[in-house]
Amino acid sequence: METNNSALLIRMIRMSWDAQNNELNKLINTLNDDQLAKEIAPGKNTGVYLLGHLIAVSDALFPLFGWGEMLYPEMQDVFIESPDKSGHSFPPVAELKLRLNTINTKLNSHFDTTTIEEWLSRHMAVKPEDFATQPHRNKLNVVISRTVHMANHIGQMLLLK
Amino acid sequence: METNNSALLIRMIRMSWDAQNNELNKLINTLNDDQLAKEIAPGKNTGVYLLGHLIAVSDALFPLFGWGEMLYPEMQDVFIESPDKSGHSFPPVAELKLRLNTINTKLNSHFDTTTIEEWLSRHMAVKPEDFATQPHRNKLNVVISRTVHMANHIGQMLLLK
Repeated sequence: METNNSALLIRMIRMSWDAQNNELNKLINTLNDDQLAKEIAPGKNTGVYLLGHLIAVSDALFPLFGWGEMLYPEMQDVFIESPDKSGHSFPPVAELKLRLNTINTKLNSHFDTTTIEEWLSRHMAVKPEDFATQPHRNKLNVVISRTVHMANHIGQMLLLK
Repeated sequence: METNNSALLIRMIRMSWDAQNNELNKLINTLNDDQLAKEIAPGKNTGVYLLGHLIAVSDALFPLFGWGEMLYPEMQDVFIESPDKSGHSFPPVAELKLRLNTINTKLNSHFDTTTIEEWLSRHMAVKPEDFATQPHRNKLNVVISRTVHMANHIGQMLLLK
């Protein structure tokens, strides 16, 4: 029963992550390239920057979880280290959509085979000695915070409609 | 160990809910009344409507979880059933902040004493026969989806800064 509880709780968190990714996909397939190129509000980030930002954040999960290298490491500088409108050129929207799909497909194959113990093990940005007293700083907690982060930006991108 | 895992998972979800509520509080205490009265983007919802909306959604957790009546049931019509700018007058921002605090204090006192089994029991909007085959439709799952919902609107309200 308790193993069932943990499995159920992990499934709920996974469902929430999946739901936000589905929302994002639905939204970017509703918006055309001109809409995505617009600012979400006057003087604020553009839709395409936020899309690139969300892709780069998901890509960074691979090394953070010890699952290998990022697929598009050059996006970190453009979409995380740098703000929008800092002179970087962005990949075309069609290419960004492909990258999002490639990353999510690979992430999902890992998610599908991750055990409860692995989910609750530390991620690579927390030291073992800190994790010993802060067991919530595990991989699954990162999925929760990334889900919330995605929701935050989806809320903004919805304004492009 | 497995009981510990479930307790840890519930704590992580609770921490995520708390973090969003803290974000919201911090944000509305940073914005003045004039800023909150503005639209998040031209033609979109005002900050004060979104604040009222989030309060009304949290208030609705009490009956949904079987924890009694809503504290401000009249807000459901104004901030959930009706869109912004539909002719309703809103309570002053100071009053909204008080209500948010009152609701969260009461919710927290319930959250603090809810057991794992209670968290994983069905909420009042799902039928027992549906819950039998869809055990993820429990109270804690509502907390996850409300956390994501709050993040979505906080992302929008951040544009008021």
